[in-house]
Amino acid sequence: MYINQISAYIPENIIDNAHFEKLVGLSEEWLLNRTGIRERRKASEDENTNILTIKALENGLKTAPFPSESIDLIIGGTYTPYDTIHTLAHAAQNFLGVSDIPVLSISSACSSFANAIEIVQGYFAMGKAKRAIIVLADHNTAYSDETDKVGGHLWGDGACALWISQERLSESDWEVKDIITGGAGNIGKASEGVFLRPAHEGFMMQNGRDVFQNACLYMGKVTLDILERNGYTLDNLSYFVPHQANLRITKNVAQSLGLSEDKALSNIQYLGNTGCAGCCIALYENQDKFKKGDLLAVTVFGGGYSYGAVLIVC
Amino acid sequence: MYINQISAYIPENIIDNAHFEKLVGLSEEWLLNRTGIRERRKASEDENTNILTIKALENGLKTAPFPSESIDLIIGGTYTPYDTIHTLAHAAQNFLGVSDIPVLSISSACSSFANAIEIVQGYFAMGKAKRAIIVLADHNTAYSDETDKVGGHLWGDGACALWISQERLSESDWEVKDIITGGAGNIGKASEGVFLRPAHEGFMMQNGRDVFQNACLYMGKVTLDILERNGYTLDNLSYFVPHQANLRITKNVAQSLGLSEDKALSNIQYLGNTGCAGCCIALYENQDKFKKGDLLAVTVFGGGYSYGAVLIVC
Repeated sequence: MYINQISAYIPENIIDNAHFEKLVGLSEEWLLNRTGIRERRKASEDENTNILTIKALENGLKTAPFPSESIDLIIGGTYTPYDTIHTLAHAAQNFLGVSDIPVLSISSACSSFANAIEIVQGYFAMGKAKRAIIVLADHNTAYSDETDKVGGHLWGDGACALWISQERLSESDWEVKDIITGGAGNIGKASEGVFLRPAHEGFMMQNGRDVFQNACLYMGKVTLDILERNGYTLDNLSYFVPHQANLRITKNVAQSLGLSEDKALSNIQYLGNTGCAGCCIALYENQDKFKKGDLLAVTVFGGGYSYGAVLIVC
Repeated sequence: MYINQISAYIPENIIDNAHFEKLVGLSEEWLLNRTGIRERRKASEDENTNILTIKALENGLKTAPFPSESIDLIIGGTYTPYDTIHTLAHAAQNFLGVSDIPVLSISSACSSFANAIEIVQGYFAMGKAKRAIIVLADHNTAYSDETDKVGGHLWGDGACALWISQERLSESDWEVKDIITGGAGNIGKASEGVFLRPAHEGFMMQNGRDVFQNACLYMGKVTLDILERNGYTLDNLSYFVPHQANLRITKNVAQSLGLSEDKALSNIQYLGNTGCAGCCIALYENQDKFKKGDLLAVTVFGGGYSYGAVLIVC
């Protein structure tokens, strides 16, 4: 399977660390040191998860690698839904105007990039689809409490869209070599480390240390696993594209793997944690940097917990 | 693929029509005539979507057709999540104690039964799984407003669990002959007929008429489609197992297909609309009625919109 195109949408409104220093008394320097985040983007009043999704699709539609009428599968990913019924995948279907195809949205929290691609791989394997759209969007600021000193400053909003085909459509397509996904809902503080309970306690990171430790552990391990089972070593890896949770997690994983920091791509400095869209936005932003044949490992970890890796050859 | 076992959990607390007559002034008789619902079940204060899920699993665990350690895939379905991060699928993983397997939850609203089975079919086709668990739960009363005269009286809570294998494990297994799923997010009032927007307007059925009309249209059509493409006619159908949205929808679809009403299975009279779990609970409740070789069409329609059908040979 091949990734033909990625597009993205980032809201215009910038929230800097001075905002949180004023609001909750955490210093700009402390926030930067703890998280790597200088600023993050916040959706406007008239934007929501479905609108972010449509704007990401709009940004890619003019250069779409296949006509919308040939789309035969749409998968959405979010843990911050605008609507759990008319989900972001259904909003995408509505926007693209394509009828009678499988459409659904998923959540494995910040791991949804890998799970969504694996579901597409399944539809391709069954012969039930050939040309898929994946949309990933998180509207974290709709649920987070910015006065929460523990996690309120981490979150940003963003969305991306992927056009994916079973057959190669262009020489510039990226090949998806392999996918690993794993739930880890049975380990550590998976059920309460970070949660979003819309009808109950809301959105909270109440055990960041457990999340941090398991993110470092699983992201390192799954990166090695996916390289090894495809006959590669870390030396073959051109770029490591991690979930954008915290710059310290990215640096910790890169260091534990012995990867130089310039191989690890990051946007958390200026976008914050954009949820399941973060690593995909990083792919979008860095696409001109990638050379033909470059090997990319997109590695994710989500609250709950979940992990995964997608191995890509540009 | 084969359904080896189904289990279910229904909360104990019964809410009758007299409750709504007292609360909002809609007469018991009017409620029964409009919806077919006499009573519905409501989760207790200490139950939520994840707890309902675990109780449904618990009810099946003693007679499980394969040991939990051989489970290699868990898919959850809900549009009324307790936690969008530690989802019901992750709660199931936690309860079952099985590590490092694909785990994710989906929403296509009340259609998730069909979409979840199709995702499992994809994992089986890829050779990435052989023994899967599907859990479906909706905690509608956590989100619905019981003083809403339009839809507050429709909803009940419930959960079910399915054990599914690629190979036949027992003569009593049911074979899944075919699955059709379709999003219809681009038709009618799909984006606003019924919605659940946790951080915005909440849960509301604001255009029940459009939902009703499209449910009748799509459920009839997809039932005929799945029979026809597998070489069957309506005469071959032993039971029609529809999404439990409204008894008038079920009767309308059965009538338009020319099916006798005793072929259409219903539990909405005493459970209300239990969301994506409803049709699966009906399978669970009626399993002793089904004879070897019986042909079942489970047909779903969800807000958003989505539809689907699963053809089963007992």
